[in-house]
Amino acid sequence: MKPATIRAAIDGKTKPPGSLGRLEGLMAVIAASQRSLTPDLGQPQMLVFAADHGVARAGVSAYPPAVTAQMVANFAAGGAAINVLCRAHGVALTVVDAGVDWDGPPPGVLARSQGRGTANFLERPAMSAAAARRAQREGAALVRALPAADRLIGFGEMGIGNTTAAAAVLAALLGLSPAAITGRGTGVDDAGLRRKRAAIRAGLALHAGAAPLAALGGFEIAMMAGAMAEAARQGRLVVVDGFVATAAWAAVDSPRLRAHSIFAHVSAERAHRAVLARLGVEPLLDLGLRLGEGSGAALAIPMIQAAAAVLREMASFESAGVTRG
Amino acid sequence: MKPATIRAAIDGKTKPPGSLGRLEGLMAVIAASQRSLTPDLGQPQMLVFAADHGVARAGVSAYPPAVTAQMVANFAAGGAAINVLCRAHGVALTVVDAGVDWDGPPPGVLARSQGRGTANFLERPAMSAAAARRAQREGAALVRALPAADRLIGFGEMGIGNTTAAAAVLAALLGLSPAAITGRGTGVDDAGLRRKRAAIRAGLALHAGAAPLAALGGFEIAMMAGAMAEAARQGRLVVVDGFVATAAWAAVDSPRLRAHSIFAHVSAERAHRAVLARLGVEPLLDLGLRLGEGSGAALAIPMIQAAAAVLREMASFESAGVTRG
Repeated sequence: MKPATIRAAIDGKTKPPGSLGRLEGLMAVIAASQRSLTPDLGQPQMLVFAADHGVARAGVSAYPPAVTAQMVANFAAGGAAINVLCRAHGVALTVVDAGVDWDGPPPGVLARSQGRGTANFLERPAMSAAAARRAQREGAALVRALPAADRLIGFGEMGIGNTTAAAAVLAALLGLSPAAITGRGTGVDDAGLRRKRAAIRAGLALHAGAAPLAALGGFEIAMMAGAMAEAARQGRLVVVDGFVATAAWAAVDSPRLRAHSIFAHVSAERAHRAVLARLGVEPLLDLGLRLGEGSGAALAIPMIQAAAAVLREMASFESAGVTRG
Repeated sequence: MKPATIRAAIDGKTKPPGSLGRLEGLMAVIAASQRSLTPDLGQPQMLVFAADHGVARAGVSAYPPAVTAQMVANFAAGGAAINVLCRAHGVALTVVDAGVDWDGPPPGVLARSQGRGTANFLERPAMSAAAARRAQREGAALVRALPAADRLIGFGEMGIGNTTAAAAVLAALLGLSPAAITGRGTGVDDAGLRRKRAAIRAGLALHAGAAPLAALGGFEIAMMAGAMAEAARQGRLVVVDGFVATAAWAAVDSPRLRAHSIFAHVSAERAHRAVLARLGVEPLLDLGLRLGEGSGAALAIPMIQAAAAVLREMASFESAGVTRG
């Protein structure tokens, strides 16, 4: 669909041109990606990928690694923020064990474990190139299994240590320094922040030249990357949550993925704003979130649905008999 | 309810402290105003007040005055942005004829006309002090007629010329200059902007010392002011839309109203950010909207409902057996 056709449809709505601000940008992305001026996004879906990280043993998080399993159990019980937000906004939530360090997931969590956490990237690659490819393939398969009519997928994650992995991946992909990329994640203290920065620096040095997603990433990041790429390939809208989801997105980054992506928010994780700017993408919300889980994506989904509804249902000057300015 | 009690409840949820950002501030406002840690906001309501303005004859708008009636007819037919947004988000919409220049409203619009538009404030007060009091009383009565269980009301407006009236009211209330307060409203051109600034300057001079709401305001602004005050008196949450709704709010401004108010967004209308800063209030969204109609309030409502749901439903570290950091 031609951009001019989309622009004319948006400008024909009964409102001063441009007066719906960012919503008009959303309308344009939705129309182009869905190839329709009357888009129906179906049931919104949320995929949350969880995994453990070898690098968490380096004391880079405010929480012990056991919290990954505890929080995924909380997801399964329906008590976490992402459960509440998805219920509040009518979003279908799927929680995926991408590689939590346990014997197996509780009922209600999809078992797609790629291993009991990655290796510590301070010692060896977080995963092999083959393991990264398999994780991406299995992520893609999850997207293919979603109903074809559901045109919008939010992507979130959980994993103690995963802002360290995400920061290392982003630094390697975008050429950012360990000092610029390192933030407090879930709220690490000053000593932890120094350990985190040192770990990222050491990881980047050890794996210079290697593919960042395998060498420095995580099972949840790799599955998410594959899932996002597949969603875009199928013409679905990809709603990117925060810092870690952005790392998965950046590992794929392609014109096709860009055409189908909406960045839900800029998080309070220190480097996220700079990373989004470097990627040349504009986040929808700025709410100071730094939780992950897909929480920012879940909060953005009603706004995206609203943009689709305005495109689909709002009257034109002609149909409503309103005088243009 | 004590702030410390509310803070402890929010910090006890299974998330790093502060990680839900602005949502945590919303949770605190909701808990305090509803005096509950398990708030139920009921069916969200939206009241949109429409009126015409004598000052519109001074060429201060990009649209002719007849567009007020045309757009309210569009509201009645369900085709405007606010109709679509309220349908998309399950908000109950009431459109009120506060003083449109016509023989009477179409079916579906509540007839509460205070007159066929205000007088031109360049010649005489927009309305008498008695008329302003009556408009506020009738606005308050509309709120009392809403179901008691509905704890959240969005406030929006429509009226060609009403950013001029709102700007004049805000300049008089807050001591801002005509140059600082005047913006393009629905998109007036440079010549219109000069006429608008001149009209505001002349109105402020002519009515110096008079009560701004009556002398410079509008019927929709006065009804909205009375409705907001009553909503706060009844302990309901007041969701303030954009520039014009902010003028109504500022005409009431009281500790009680502050305790129950959420500013949905900062609009693209030039002075709105400065006005919100002067009032010492923080908007939730920044989407470049400049439509009015309650559109920003409608977009914020799902987020406010999400904050209430998180407060009500999210597990605590204790209940979920998750280790604190």
